[in-house]
Amino acid sequence: MTLTPLTDLSRLCLHTITTKPWNIDHAAKNYASAGVRGITVWRDALEGRNIAQTGQMLRDHDLTIVSLCRGGFFASKDHSKRQEAIDDNRRAIKEASELGTNKIVLVCGADPVQSLEESRKQIRDGIAAILPAAEAAGMQLAIEPLHPMYADVRSAINTLKQANDMAESLNSTCIGVAVDIYHLWWDPDLEKEIIRCGRQGHLLAFHISDWKTPTSDMLNDRGLMGEGCIPIRKIRSWVENAGFEGFIEVEIFSNVFWKQDQSDFLNRIISSYKEFA
Amino acid sequence: MTLTPLTDLSRLCLHTITTKPWNIDHAAKNYASAGVRGITVWRDALEGRNIAQTGQMLRDHDLTIVSLCRGGFFASKDHSKRQEAIDDNRRAIKEASELGTNKIVLVCGADPVQSLEESRKQIRDGIAAILPAAEAAGMQLAIEPLHPMYADVRSAINTLKQANDMAESLNSTCIGVAVDIYHLWWDPDLEKEIIRCGRQGHLLAFHISDWKTPTSDMLNDRGLMGEGCIPIRKIRSWVENAGFEGFIEVEIFSNVFWKQDQSDFLNRIISSYKEFA
Repeated sequence: MTLTPLTDLSRLCLHTITTKPWNIDHAAKNYASAGVRGITVWRDALEGRNIAQTGQMLRDHDLTIVSLCRGGFFASKDHSKRQEAIDDNRRAIKEASELGTNKIVLVCGADPVQSLEESRKQIRDGIAAILPAAEAAGMQLAIEPLHPMYADVRSAINTLKQANDMAESLNSTCIGVAVDIYHLWWDPDLEKEIIRCGRQGHLLAFHISDWKTPTSDMLNDRGLMGEGCIPIRKIRSWVENAGFEGFIEVEIFSNVFWKQDQSDFLNRIISSYKEFA
Repeated sequence: MTLTPLTDLSRLCLHTITTKPWNIDHAAKNYASAGVRGITVWRDALEGRNIAQTGQMLRDHDLTIVSLCRGGFFASKDHSKRQEAIDDNRRAIKEASELGTNKIVLVCGADPVQSLEESRKQIRDGIAAILPAAEAAGMQLAIEPLHPMYADVRSAINTLKQANDMAESLNSTCIGVAVDIYHLWWDPDLEKEIIRCGRQGHLLAFHISDWKTPTSDMLNDRGLMGEGCIPIRKIRSWVENAGFEGFIEVEIFSNVFWKQDQSDFLNRIISSYKEFA
């Protein structure tokens, strides 16, 4: 197992949603003060703001803007909603450019009133539709497979194999995959598919958190690294063996942590990153 | 798509846990009155009872005892707990024989303090340890893959491919697989693995319910057939194309339905079985 020790925070990135109670000004200031070097910006954090100025503010804090979260949600039985999703993803590409990042994470979508096969076809068609805009903007689109418990409404792409298959079939330098261990840790083919993803040059992002026992909420009860059963270091070793050297992104949705003092939480993120990531 | 119409209830089986508020006497009487022909008995329903007499009571109601639920839970970091699980599974084989069924469903177990690989090895060892007792009793053991959201504590076997692999490697006429659509509906390889399972003679059981949107509880919020997004008939067509002609077992854990009048619920099960299964 090859594993680069995380002796400093140079590869640590936080998703703004992880510290949702903070607005992006507070998040940027506090991340930077703590030594965090990367930020992934959720679109809700940009609402009502000048995006270009926000990007500049982040760079002024010496933060690398790792990606914009999130595009996607291409699947719908309703044709007009599919078109709206395509339009919204084109806006996301524009926003990401203004912000100053070259990567968008795609949560692909699913519609429970139709088959998963149909949703997958619509996802592929939706990505293909925005691909010219992504290519023109030099924007990378990272397909994120989601845990099978989200197959009804959030994503019909539920394994890394499916994401790899789709990325390869779309065959563009702008298309890749985001590996989130919360979604994928259970998969017996995970190591094999991570290696495949890296070999194809498709491994664009690495998101971490932990799976708590018990998990009290299907959406918002993710654990801090070390609180759960995910073999984070083992999976990181696979990702690094696959050639990934990018940011390690902490993406935690948690009703528990969002209620706590966010400065304390940030300190805990940093210590658990050093100890368990 | 080949699909035998379900014109009557001759293939309908209910799990006792589906109508948990009823004891097994009430369940048997009410199932039989409604025309249900099969029953899968959960072990909690047998507590404090004479098992052989209970089996006779069920047969007196013209109910086929489809299986005993459940054995398994082989995985533990603690050696003594693994031995206890093996002993308990041997007791389950004895109970199933006394009850008068030739099938036990295995929920294989997982232990979040160790790797999934280690849990899987212990599962295999545990099944191998009870195999002689199963063979002596003519008892079929149905490995049930569980949804990946249960990979922390309930089962490290989370896809039908894994269950098929394990069943084939154990290579015994007593070993097979239980296909529960709640656990497996999202899997892009489901049809292929169902066909493989049938071809090997391993398709021992077929459990149905539905996946609700939203699902409010990870354990006890299963839907009645037709309430959710699972393509029940499509999956049944795969199972029947794979040669399965056995009971269609309704296994619903639901805090919602358990609070309702169970006679009304039974009527709804029957009508939704006819309409959606």
